[in-house]
Amino acid sequence: MKNQNAIIGYYSTKFGELWDKTLDDLIMDAFQGILQEVKLEASAIDAVFLGNMLGGVVEENLLLSAHVSELTGIHVPVYRVEAACASGGLAFQSADDYLNSHPDSTVMVLGAEKMTDIGAGEITKSLAAAASVDEQAAGLTFPGVYAILAQIYLDKYGYNEEHLASISVKNHAHGVLNEKAHFRRYVTIDNVLESPYVAYPLKVLDSSPISDGAATVILTNKKEHIASSKAVSILASEVATDSISIAKRKNLDSLEATVIAAEKAFKKAGIGRQDVHVMEVHDCFSIAEILALEDLGFWEKGKGGQLAKEMVTSRESGSNLIVNTSGGLKAAGHPVGGTGIKQIGEIYLQLTGQAGERQVKNLQFGLTHNVGGSGGVAVVSILGV
Amino acid sequence: MKNQNAIIGYYSTKFGELWDKTLDDLIMDAFQGILQEVKLEASAIDAVFLGNMLGGVVEENLLLSAHVSELTGIHVPVYRVEAACASGGLAFQSADDYLNSHPDSTVMVLGAEKMTDIGAGEITKSLAAAASVDEQAAGLTFPGVYAILAQIYLDKYGYNEEHLASISVKNHAHGVLNEKAHFRRYVTIDNVLESPYVAYPLKVLDSSPISDGAATVILTNKKEHIASSKAVSILASEVATDSISIAKRKNLDSLEATVIAAEKAFKKAGIGRQDVHVMEVHDCFSIAEILALEDLGFWEKGKGGQLAKEMVTSRESGSNLIVNTSGGLKAAGHPVGGTGIKQIGEIYLQLTGQAGERQVKNLQFGLTHNVGGSGGVAVVSILGV
Repeated sequence: MKNQNAIIGYYSTKFGELWDKTLDDLIMDAFQGILQEVKLEASAIDAVFLGNMLGGVVEENLLLSAHVSELTGIHVPVYRVEAACASGGLAFQSADDYLNSHPDSTVMVLGAEKMTDIGAGEITKSLAAAASVDEQAAGLTFPGVYAILAQIYLDKYGYNEEHLASISVKNHAHGVLNEKAHFRRYVTIDNVLESPYVAYPLKVLDSSPISDGAATVILTNKKEHIASSKAVSILASEVATDSISIAKRKNLDSLEATVIAAEKAFKKAGIGRQDVHVMEVHDCFSIAEILALEDLGFWEKGKGGQLAKEMVTSRESGSNLIVNTSGGLKAAGHPVGGTGIKQIGEIYLQLTGQAGERQVKNLQFGLTHNVGGSGGVAVVSILGV
Repeated sequence: MKNQNAIIGYYSTKFGELWDKTLDDLIMDAFQGILQEVKLEASAIDAVFLGNMLGGVVEENLLLSAHVSELTGIHVPVYRVEAACASGGLAFQSADDYLNSHPDSTVMVLGAEKMTDIGAGEITKSLAAAASVDEQAAGLTFPGVYAILAQIYLDKYGYNEEHLASISVKNHAHGVLNEKAHFRRYVTIDNVLESPYVAYPLKVLDSSPISDGAATVILTNKKEHIASSKAVSILASEVATDSISIAKRKNLDSLEATVIAAEKAFKKAGIGRQDVHVMEVHDCFSIAEILALEDLGFWEKGKGGQLAKEMVTSRESGSNLIVNTSGGLKAAGHPVGGTGIKQIGEIYLQLTGQAGERQVKNLQFGLTHNVGGSGGVAVVSILGV
């Protein structure tokens, strides 16, 4: 299946603690890396969509559009997209939309984040800028907000911390096969359960790390570019919003923005859940992956704890739905602006048979799910070959 | 002339020191104000484009999309656009583009900024986040960067501070007629020349103020909405980028991003400079308006100092090109995310005969020009009736 807009290449830096790289370095590494990958000159790029959350907050770096122009010499439109941890996914969604009104165009979508140059306390405070003012004033950090969601879920459906831990065990096992991952080591259920609490019931090993990194894809609707490359069609990319404060939400065992975005995306793509055999979902904390599988419509509400414990979406399960082959945010790392693009890139690699050791076989469709804040924004994209 | 995409209404809060308003208050005032103005329900809005620069930097307020959802109950796509002082203009440009791929849709473009809750030193430092890291490290603030541009211009073309001062005198006179303006008082050449230096040769009265405020327009391509309202067509809205550092630019007596965006916009609109009789340009400092008139192609390069002194674009001149009838950034105020939308709104009011005391007669076309940083981004839009 070929749609009008296609992804024709993916590149990412290593994700991790990249002490010798500035934000501009990461942007430039990704910019040059993807052009080399797709064998295009910078002059072939008609616009750039740049996902970045924290440039302004942690290092007084705004107007990143003009950084791109300075580093590369281009004068084309550059759009900085900020939607907290969904900045990358929303940059992709915006770029797909851009192509719908710009025939014969080629666009770069680049997500980058530099997070490790400030202390852990400071970065936690900066990330909390994507929580509501009231939540921040109450002293809630993001682990705290997701801990509330986790407590409610475990209480309501009768699960415990071991059910959550299974998500991290699976994603770490997947990440071992990803050469760009922040962490490439196995963890056990006991490792997770014995790791220190961050915010009860979430522990260090329930939580995605603070990472540096950049990831980029090239989108095009130029027939000659699509024909000459390994192309993946964008069947749908949809976004929905919800209250920034969890106190103002209707339900706390579900992220409504995910539900709405997924419904729109499946309707537009014209396929069913049963057609998707690989996907990357937003596992910023272990509880988030369970909520995601339910809210995206793959698992019945309340069944996620048990299914997570059975690791039915692991590579080893042999099931027909493998989730977070990249290692997810947990093991591959979470440079926030880069994460949404890495998700797209992982599905691109899987659908084009370029995923190496972590290749899943016989794929036609894949899905990505990127969340901003505690569910204030969700972006769901469906790709196909 | 009717194009596909039209502006059907404008609303803004007062611009100024709004001590009793938070950023969320400003967003909500504008949201409710524009819906009342155009007599639409919130459910009629298919997407929101939100221009804001400093939410993350000055008050740890990111993910503004989810603020809008919380405040209003909507779940539609909300895009936060950040391009420093061009955030509003780029939000408008992005929304116009969005409509090109979304037939039968209605979009809100809302720009808001809360700037006065922190000290003057702190806000100056925060604004400098839109300068390059090297410029910031060198101790350059935005007045400093524009002061360099001013020195070069005055030296190269043989002008003095009085030439610059004329811009402020004109814009303050215009602002007296704008009931939403931050400043509504006349200043004289002597007032400007006697005001304290901020960065030689720029003085307090060469500089736009730190303002709070929000402005919003509704764009649509729904025929029934266009037919039932005072509509203005969007003939072109174009953006170009340039190096964030002035040290990396080819010329320092010109902003190349403005030149490129203007050329693209006039080409797309299919009209000439002589057809434009009213426009809002980015006068963050007096020198910026002189550069704008030259770079937009209205004045010959190097002649701007003299023409500014002759005040050929003042209401009183009786000329056929009146610039910054709102008072410009200088007198109307400069809540950065709001500025680009206010520019669009002012031209909308002028073209629809709703500009009251400051109405310019016999208009068919108008132009807006919004700059980010010291010229790293420029957005030029051309409107017509």
